[in-house]
Amino acid sequence: MDELNPAPRLLMGPGPVNADPRVLRAMSMPLLGQFDAEFTGYMNDVMALLRRLFQTQNEWALLVNGTARAGIEAALVSLLEPGDRVLVPIFGRFGHLLCEIARRCGADVQSIETEWGTVFDPQQIETAIQQHRPSVVAVVHGDTSTTMAQPLDGLGAICRHYDALLYVDATATLGGMTVPVDAWQLDIVSAGLQKCLSGPSGSAPITFNDRVVKAIERRRHIEQGIKPEGFVPAAGLPIQSNYFDLAMLMDYWSPQRLNHHTEASSMLYAARECARLVLREGLDACFERHALASRAMTTGLQAMGLELFGDQRHKMANVTGVVVPPGVQGDAIRHSLLEDFGIEIGTSFGPLHGRIWRIGAMGYACRKQNVLLCLGALEAALRQQGFPLGSGAAVDAAMQVYRDAGS
Amino acid sequence: MDELNPAPRLLMGPGPVNADPRVLRAMSMPLLGQFDAEFTGYMNDVMALLRRLFQTQNEWALLVNGTARAGIEAALVSLLEPGDRVLVPIFGRFGHLLCEIARRCGADVQSIETEWGTVFDPQQIETAIQQHRPSVVAVVHGDTSTTMAQPLDGLGAICRHYDALLYVDATATLGGMTVPVDAWQLDIVSAGLQKCLSGPSGSAPITFNDRVVKAIERRRHIEQGIKPEGFVPAAGLPIQSNYFDLAMLMDYWSPQRLNHHTEASSMLYAARECARLVLREGLDACFERHALASRAMTTGLQAMGLELFGDQRHKMANVTGVVVPPGVQGDAIRHSLLEDFGIEIGTSFGPLHGRIWRIGAMGYACRKQNVLLCLGALEAALRQQGFPLGSGAAVDAAMQVYRDAGS
Repeated sequence: MDELNPAPRLLMGPGPVNADPRVLRAMSMPLLGQFDAEFTGYMNDVMALLRRLFQTQNEWALLVNGTARAGIEAALVSLLEPGDRVLVPIFGRFGHLLCEIARRCGADVQSIETEWGTVFDPQQIETAIQQHRPSVVAVVHGDTSTTMAQPLDGLGAICRHYDALLYVDATATLGGMTVPVDAWQLDIVSAGLQKCLSGPSGSAPITFNDRVVKAIERRRHIEQGIKPEGFVPAAGLPIQSNYFDLAMLMDYWSPQRLNHHTEASSMLYAARECARLVLREGLDACFERHALASRAMTTGLQAMGLELFGDQRHKMANVTGVVVPPGVQGDAIRHSLLEDFGIEIGTSFGPLHGRIWRIGAMGYACRKQNVLLCLGALEAALRQQGFPLGSGAAVDAAMQVYRDAGS
Repeated sequence: MDELNPAPRLLMGPGPVNADPRVLRAMSMPLLGQFDAEFTGYMNDVMALLRRLFQTQNEWALLVNGTARAGIEAALVSLLEPGDRVLVPIFGRFGHLLCEIARRCGADVQSIETEWGTVFDPQQIETAIQQHRPSVVAVVHGDTSTTMAQPLDGLGAICRHYDALLYVDATATLGGMTVPVDAWQLDIVSAGLQKCLSGPSGSAPITFNDRVVKAIERRRHIEQGIKPEGFVPAAGLPIQSNYFDLAMLMDYWSPQRLNHHTEASSMLYAARECARLVLREGLDACFERHALASRAMTTGLQAMGLELFGDQRHKMANVTGVVVPPGVQGDAIRHSLLEDFGIEIGTSFGPLHGRIWRIGAMGYACRKQNVLLCLGALEAALRQQGFPLGSGAAVDAAMQVYRDAGS
């Protein structure tokens, strides 16, 4: 079997997107032992960098060694005991995933739904909280399945008022849209590297505050085989996963360095570099780069005569839903983009399957040249399929947006 | 914060060890979309390579996206429903870990223990099976905490006779000692990359046979949000983890490609290269390289006047336990090896804490030059601490072992 030789692709789907070459380079650095002071120093660096990325003073900001979904499960399984009430506002596929994971934790899950392409008014969520009295509210920030971002400002305060913990899945937004964890009073937030952080999937940043620590401490157990003599486990039920037990992850990431898993060194290197690069650019600059690409992309798509999907007031900055025009084979266009132009855009799930394309411009891939190349290629692919278009209009319109922004 | 710049270390502990530079290079390859035919082709490559690594005809050989511990939890949580009886023969720390994880799955866990440094006679395990009638027997192959390898030949047949499934944790042996999954009738086996496979921690190869598939199918559920219309879930209880649900991982790794997590691309590249390199060398050549290094290391250590730990008939090929001599500060020696020579060796856990060092020679690090450098450095560090030694004896004796082997 031959060496790897992946084709060069421009990844303009809903993620994973192209990794920053500096992140790939970081992953090629030599390994260190997991308790080498130099390695634990890198772990501490990651904690410090993640705090800034999450805009938080939380002590706890660390990595779960798995994909973004591992971060979600670590959050929910560490908080939820069987029978606990959870409320999930669902506005896309990943809301269903939160329900699914919470249900597997044995939780009593209530959900509210809104049509795909829309989001909730915080008041609707408050009403549902009043009705269901959950101990945890779990919500997605940006749901790539619909390209919508749920407004979260104010929701933290509502959850505190009703004594519920607020979990947010920020997988698709962290680094691309502001997620001010402390200002918004988000209790526990998880993410992934493969969207706006320009890394590969496989490591899940997570942060949580003292309210969450208190809940987790009630369930603190130390595993058989490494328990110090005289250790008294907490009164609460053990967390039903060893791997995702945040209490044990805290012990591993704290100066105590109590052995749990063997930290995935290369992915830690990647996470460190992902966070470092975003902060080097500056959070605000990074958010503005995504917002500008979003304006250019949507302007270009509309100039091409295409219809955008969903409530544009709540569109995510880093991904755009666009309606597949009547008479056009959506998958044939995607195939042409990939095979002829080396550009990947996304299809969609569930009720939107085949109805919209999802075009990302995130992380390292979020730059003027890619927006323009993608629009030009999409226009050409549509023209080849016989869909009549004002040739060049999309690229010209997007260039104008960049020009107006001085870039 | 600066770029990464890890110090060059020779990692001769119980793992992680130095990654093969070709594996590091594989991780620096550009990313592909997760459903790109080229990427799913690489997933299929990994399945084919893992089958050969595990010496199996099993259809299912794939990666769990997490560290070796994630592979263990995926195996146990997918098999065990609350109340299921599990038997764990414990001969070191990782046996305790299996108990711990099984208990968190709600299983009724019975264990038998043998003194650290010894292993079980298969007859002892059979007796315990007769007594406890478990539905699953879970056992570690090589437990690095004691450096012992449990003989497994025959145990598969015993388990079948009593209608129990046999899970084996081969994290520390796969690639370094033979793990013939089919010949030994091991039903489900998981591993990691960071030992004899010369990769970083963070991806867990796993394989399982049709007996396991049958057990898992009884619990097959598809998650809310991507369930095809008309799908009827199986009658068994849902697997209590979404992330570790092997039925869903099968759907993701099969031609069906039903979305689950977003495969950790760079770690998949790493796993592919790890497996490819071992198979390129040849399994037997790889096992012999580890066995030879073990003979050279043990001969050298004894020539130095040190006492080996544990039942040498059952010593793992890739790691050696050596007793810290009376009057010697074990941690000071380790510190000197790391700081003065850039060589990491391991300390130990639980009842052996401070009593033995664990010296690995595995994967890429398992080579003549490293065995000799490590022995020479250990001798020097001991001499510096005032421990009287026949100077040079260790290196000379180890060189002789290599010379006798014609290398």
